[in-house]
Amino acid sequence: MPREITAFSNPLIKRIRALREKRHRREEGLFLAEGLRILTEARDAGRLPRYLFFAADSAGHPLVRALVGAAEAAGGEAIETSRDILHKLSGKDNPQAVVGVYDAFATPLAALDRTTAPIWIVAQSLRDPGNLGTILRTGDAVGAGGLILVDECVDPFSIEAVRASMGALFTQAIAQASWPEFLAWLRAGPGQLVGLSLQTELDYQDPVYAAPTFLLVGNEAQGLPEAYEAECDLLVKLPMLGKADSLNAAVATAVTAYEVLNQRRARRAH
Amino acid sequence: MPREITAFSNPLIKRIRALREKRHRREEGLFLAEGLRILTEARDAGRLPRYLFFAADSAGHPLVRALVGAAEAAGGEAIETSRDILHKLSGKDNPQAVVGVYDAFATPLAALDRTTAPIWIVAQSLRDPGNLGTILRTGDAVGAGGLILVDECVDPFSIEAVRASMGALFTQAIAQASWPEFLAWLRAGPGQLVGLSLQTELDYQDPVYAAPTFLLVGNEAQGLPEAYEAECDLLVKLPMLGKADSLNAAVATAVTAYEVLNQRRARRAH
Repeated sequence: MPREITAFSNPLIKRIRALREKRHRREEGLFLAEGLRILTEARDAGRLPRYLFFAADSAGHPLVRALVGAAEAAGGEAIETSRDILHKLSGKDNPQAVVGVYDAFATPLAALDRTTAPIWIVAQSLRDPGNLGTILRTGDAVGAGGLILVDECVDPFSIEAVRASMGALFTQAIAQASWPEFLAWLRAGPGQLVGLSLQTELDYQDPVYAAPTFLLVGNEAQGLPEAYEAECDLLVKLPMLGKADSLNAAVATAVTAYEVLNQRRARRAH
Repeated sequence: MPREITAFSNPLIKRIRALREKRHRREEGLFLAEGLRILTEARDAGRLPRYLFFAADSAGHPLVRALVGAAEAAGGEAIETSRDILHKLSGKDNPQAVVGVYDAFATPLAALDRTTAPIWIVAQSLRDPGNLGTILRTGDAVGAGGLILVDECVDPFSIEAVRASMGALFTQAIAQASWPEFLAWLRAGPGQLVGLSLQTELDYQDPVYAAPTFLLVGNEAQGLPEAYEAECDLLVKLPMLGKADSLNAAVATAVTAYEVLNQRRARRAH
């Protein structure tokens, strides 16, 4: 039976709310996700929350009931609470009906089986949590195996990244590595490393991409370091007709990832 | 000669800071943009700030000096200030060296010349300022003529949208219209209306896009209303192989816009 928490001063509420900060996520090994859609996606991917907060006014919703049942069956605790407290937990003005608290997870690089997917996305020093979440979401759509975070990237378990991923955080493998670690692992097996770059004349539609394709995107402001570009099998760039000289990192990744996917689909005749 | 403001309590600082709220932007007809890159892009597009705030410690930077000169020559006021006040104006932890205050602008739908560009982007009830800015940035890259905002969209002059646009706000035409207004205008001239939808089996790579192509993207959560989809010449969808059933709105727009662009580039042989 779910217990009820209605007091803002409840120690568990304070502790969970603190998970919006990276330091506390690291200490606790926990992170927050919110919303029926994302929590249901997580459940379908086999991930159930350690704590499941749900709004009293949504207790009768079939998806909420299903989540409560699944969380309790897996040893988690379901907690009925108010929209005000959900707002306090998630920081959103219009809080979702459910907030889940999950064990953080990461896949060691050595445990990734690159042969299970034709595309992998590699992000280097990515700073924006919305971009990271959006890249995870795109990875899910193009059939990527996962996201490898190289060097110091924004925390994939930040609430903004989880939100932008729309649940793909739970379906995509996520690994973290330094550049030398990544490179050593990459070169120990098959794979084409394709860097998104402005320092090339090679149009992204020109090469034939070889599976598994590792798409490497750099920091939003700086792009990839030269030394990293030098290690790529290919550097490609998107045509840009306008006045600006770059695209949003998540957009550039998505357009290139769809080109890789499209090459593997039946060729279409016009 | 630039004047200097160092007091947080200065009435102009209070007034400019208030422009972070939509209500004040509407009342004043002004909006904020920040950063050397974006302000220089604006200048190159012929837009100069009414007020230009710059950090005292960057007064010697050639780009800052060029902006100060251009703003003053155009009748604007340059104001030397501190990083703390720039932080207060922009709300950013690491404020940029410059913040500009610009007259809001919008192009009436009737003033858009659709023949000047092969692609136009139309967003309906878009809610996220980051998505709006990213779509403007993508529009610039694919050679779009501008962005038409249909129904109640997020304010394109919000600081988050301006930031995400990376200057494309100043290079892309922006029009706002109700759906009936847009439709009447659209059908009074040439143009193919292509809706991004999940309610179709038509793959986005199948049709031959006709210029001018109007790419229509709906609200992030709801997509396009059925009645709007019924008015489209084509509804297309992106292949999605994963567990999720949708993509980020700015990503879906970009991938489709690049397909339209790619069809117009020389066909590439593999």
